[in-house]
Amino acid sequence: MQGKESQDKTTVIGLQCKVLDYGFIRVVDTMGNDFSIVQAARVSYGDGTKTVNEDKGLINYLMKHRHTSPFEMCEIKLHIKLPIFIARQWIRHRTANVNECSARYSILPEEYYIPEIENIAPQSAQNKQCRGGEISTKEAQSTQKLMEESSKQAYQNYKILLGGENETGIAREIARGVLPLNMYTEWYWKIDLHNLLHFIKLRIHPHAQYEIRVYAEKLAEIVKQWCPMAYGAFEEHVLHAHTFSRKQIEVLKKLLSGVEIQGEGLSKRELEEMRGVLK
Amino acid sequence: MQGKESQDKTTVIGLQCKVLDYGFIRVVDTMGNDFSIVQAARVSYGDGTKTVNEDKGLINYLMKHRHTSPFEMCEIKLHIKLPIFIARQWIRHRTANVNECSARYSILPEEYYIPEIENIAPQSAQNKQCRGGEISTKEAQSTQKLMEESSKQAYQNYKILLGGENETGIAREIARGVLPLNMYTEWYWKIDLHNLLHFIKLRIHPHAQYEIRVYAEKLAEIVKQWCPMAYGAFEEHVLHAHTFSRKQIEVLKKLLSGVEIQGEGLSKRELEEMRGVLK
Amino acid sequence: MQGKESQDKTTVIGLQCKVLDYGFIRVVDTMGNDFSIVQAARVSYGDGTKTVNEDKGLINYLMKHRHTSPFEMCEIKLHIKLPIFIARQWIRHRTANVNECSARYSILPEEYYIPEIENIAPQSAQNKQCRGGEISTKEAQSTQKLMEESSKQAYQNYKILLGGENETGIAREIARGVLPLNMYTEWYWKIDLHNLLHFIKLRIHPHAQYEIRVYAEKLAEIVKQWCPMAYGAFEEHVLHAHTFSRKQIEVLKKLLSGVEIQGEGLSKRELEEMRGVLK
Amino acid sequence: MQGKESQDKTTVIGLQCKVLDYGFIRVVDTMGNDFSIVQAARVSYGDGTKTVNEDKGLINYLMKHRHTSPFEMCEIKLHIKLPIFIARQWIRHRTANVNECSARYSILPEEYYIPEIENIAPQSAQNKQCRGGEISTKEAQSTQKLMEESSKQAYQNYKILLGGENETGIAREIARGVLPLNMYTEWYWKIDLHNLLHFIKLRIHPHAQYEIRVYAEKLAEIVKQWCPMAYGAFEEHVLHAHTFSRKQIEVLKKLLSGVEIQGEGLSKRELEEMRGVLK
Repeated sequence: MQGKESQDKTTVIGLQCKVLDYGFIRVVDTMGNDFSIVQAARVSYGDGTKTVNEDKGLINYLMKHRHTSPFEMCEIKLHIKLPIFIARQWIRHRTANVNECSARYSILPEEYYIPEIENIAPQSAQNKQCRGGEISTKEAQSTQKLMEESSKQAYQNYKILLGGENETGIAREIARGVLPLNMYTEWYWKIDLHNLLHFIKLRIHPHAQYEIRVYAEKLAEIVKQWCPMAYGAFEEHVLHAHTFSRKQIEVLKKLLSGVEIQGEGLSKRELEEMRGVLK
Repeated sequence: MQGKESQDKTTVIGLQCKVLDYGFIRVVDTMGNDFSIVQAARVSYGDGTKTVNEDKGLINYLMKHRHTSPFEMCEIKLHIKLPIFIARQWIRHRTANVNECSARYSILPEEYYIPEIENIAPQSAQNKQCRGGEISTKEAQSTQKLMEESSKQAYQNYKILLGGENETGIAREIARGVLPLNMYTEWYWKIDLHNLLHFIKLRIHPHAQYEIRVYAEKLAEIVKQWCPMAYGAFEEHVLHAHTFSRKQIEVLKKLLSGVEIQGEGLSKRELEEMRGVLK
Repeated sequence: MQGKESQDKTTVIGLQCKVLDYGFIRVVDTMGNDFSIVQAARVSYGDGTKTVNEDKGLINYLMKHRHTSPFEMCEIKLHIKLPIFIARQWIRHRTANVNECSARYSILPEEYYIPEIENIAPQSAQNKQCRGGEISTKEAQSTQKLMEESSKQAYQNYKILLGGENETGIAREIARGVLPLNMYTEWYWKIDLHNLLHFIKLRIHPHAQYEIRVYAEKLAEIVKQWCPMAYGAFEEHVLHAHTFSRKQIEVLKKLLSGVEIQGEGLSKRELEEMRGVLK
Repeated sequence: MQGKESQDKTTVIGLQCKVLDYGFIRVVDTMGNDFSIVQAARVSYGDGTKTVNEDKGLINYLMKHRHTSPFEMCEIKLHIKLPIFIARQWIRHRTANVNECSARYSILPEEYYIPEIENIAPQSAQNKQCRGGEISTKEAQSTQKLMEESSKQAYQNYKILLGGENETGIAREIARGVLPLNMYTEWYWKIDLHNLLHFIKLRIHPHAQYEIRVYAEKLAEIVKQWCPMAYGAFEEHVLHAHTFSRKQIEVLKKLLSGVEIQGEGLSKRELEEMRGVLK
């Protein structure tokens, strides 16, 4: 049993992905894998599931029906470097463990995030929270330049406040106040698979800010490699699934009244479920 | 502002619902209501949402898009009496505060749950975890009788172990070991609205055990009265919504190819969303 | 019973404390008070505690023995304005609910924290994380001036990036990257009393950063007014208590060998406990 | 770096301890060890801790000052078999992941806990929640016999309700209602080191029920083997430390006024701390 777990383990530990200009995600350690999900589920269902002899089928079943606890039995620890304004969104996910580099103890290095030309855009007209539309390359370049200058100036002020090399100035915890939100920070982040998938779902969404979306995409790649069955089930039943409201279901029923629902590629169970909902 | 909050408050505090034979749910206290959800959401979206001037619309939007944090701003405290085997399912919801009557301190009274005739059924042939199918009234009656006798006998043994009225026997914490799982216990349970709705969603489901489902139904009634807008949004976008998997969406697309999606009763936004998903 | 709870309620709701230059804490709502702690504890201990008829004694007992769950039965919701670098420390307390003003939706106003002259100090020589020692008034003044200028410059760059009044520039979510960490943000923060006291304990500590300590001090004042008995017990058994390590206890035992422990002002129970530990 | 982590890993995985008559704790998997605590702490304190070059010293420092987050970076997964009345106490620790054997799916085997003669005692006269004092061997034997008979009878009723081997009776989820609280259940339980130590602290306490204390003792042995430095620090600064209340500190000060505090075996730092508190 352990054999199975440890075997795959070597595949993701140590993996490192570059993100944005200075950022990264590095896999420090993992506990469990697809097999552990099955193992935990079988404890719950005991003799009752003797007939479910296919691991992949069981994992899909658990994901579809939101039996989340077996997915909590896998854990991953990551070392992540990310801009502070992204760290502030990230930390809102409370079911995780964090050790962050403290700017009360350490002097932060001069590393701040400057967006690439293609990621600079105006406020979206459609969506109150997003960027959207286009900006001329010239404007984008001057944006980059201003962000660069503004960040550099702030960092210089930070160094002056600290009092230069000999640190004859003020305390780090005060001086950092002038540092910009695009400064990079680092942390160790440990989370279980269920909560990680929830994070990915929310942050890989097109309305999530680009700068966190790229981290979510890397996390998705890591999970895909670490727990391929769980990730496949997540894509099928969560990421590329869609929830229709009660009113939308009514509309679907009307549109499909009289139409026989034939499900190419659907399992018998999924077909029956659709027929049940849309009848 | 407080006026609005406190006004409605009186409507549910003190409300008490009978559940099963000895069980109940009593509303001890509440914090916030529909208005608090809106209030908290407006802090997040600030000037950006000046145009969303309809509370109900905003609450529906938050629910549909799973912006859960404003719903966490409402809190309810309940006094609940329930059989121990249900308490064991209930407590799996971790994001809540609990003070349970301790059988180390107190002698439990002779109250155990005996199911009604109509709720006694054999193990379901379809679903590994449920009851299903029928049993003769005679068999149901003898079931009731045996459960009654078994529980009564166990309770008598408990009293003997305690050593009768003078308690000259063994400690309560040991004696309780012989008590049956259908004994009633009581607790104070405090939870925020988001997590309460999640509880209701899972426990009002037809596959949940009947004996917890009846509690979930009462909780639903309480929320409906406490936060009617939030409950309406929950029904529309969670409870009576349906999630189709990626494969099921593909089937829907095929079935509806060439059909123009007209949405009677749908908002423009919901109509566009459906068209987008099913195109 | 409810009467008791609602009576005191009016005393803190609406209370607003100024903190730092632009910050504040405002009490939006509360649930429960000292009485609710007793009420919840009595559910747990049932008949077993008939003899503990003094609320204050019971609350002290619960606090001393870290019976934390009854304190979780009180909840408070606060509206808080605080500098972002403090918000980043604050949010590490995960057992709370938060709705923060989003700089993706809104343009942040020009409000940044500048420390008072007396709070500007060099990095401590003793403690790696703190400020400590002194700086000349002249140096402090030039620190203030540089922080002010640096923040103002950054805010001007932010406005330029947004494209001025017509916002013809880039999206808010990108532009905010140049804003300094001393910018103010706002949030609704909801937490139970047990976790709030834990927050206060950690953040009122002399080694906590001054700028969060002043918030913790105001929170302490609020709790003192809201739940005076619980706050008194917290001061006695947590805040002004002291934990000695095993080795330190050994030293105490040696120093006190032969000395009879007489406890002026100690309850019999506390006296016996001391004698037991130090014998 | 990983080398260090994986090396020790083999030492506890697979370890199995017998507890009570049918119970056990088995280590399924672990993530991290003493080294991971240090590794995570160094991320937080960065350059600022260059001088702390001793792992053990750092771990002691973290434990003493309740810097809990680095301890959250270690995780352990256990397979545990335990009586239901203990499982109900256990599950109150919410910061853990659980998959329990479901008696809705499975028929529970005939295994119930019967206390040993030496663990049968009357209700304590001193402490409202505990057993205490003695009972004659004869009485203890008749207690055992009655518990055995009562449990056996209840189990037979359970089997009758299920309808014997062919299960022609009622559903498992109903029938289990007559089972006694001393029946054994099983679960997978996953928790981080910080929360595990907190569990041990509370449940190894003399006032904890004997039947959970024996599990806590085994958990302590496991941690001692898994993370020996962390466990040592826990013993020194938590388990065998003692917290004196403000009033008790005042008494200590009086008793020691004029006495010079000399600390044999104390570090300079601990000595200074004592002198500071007691001056």
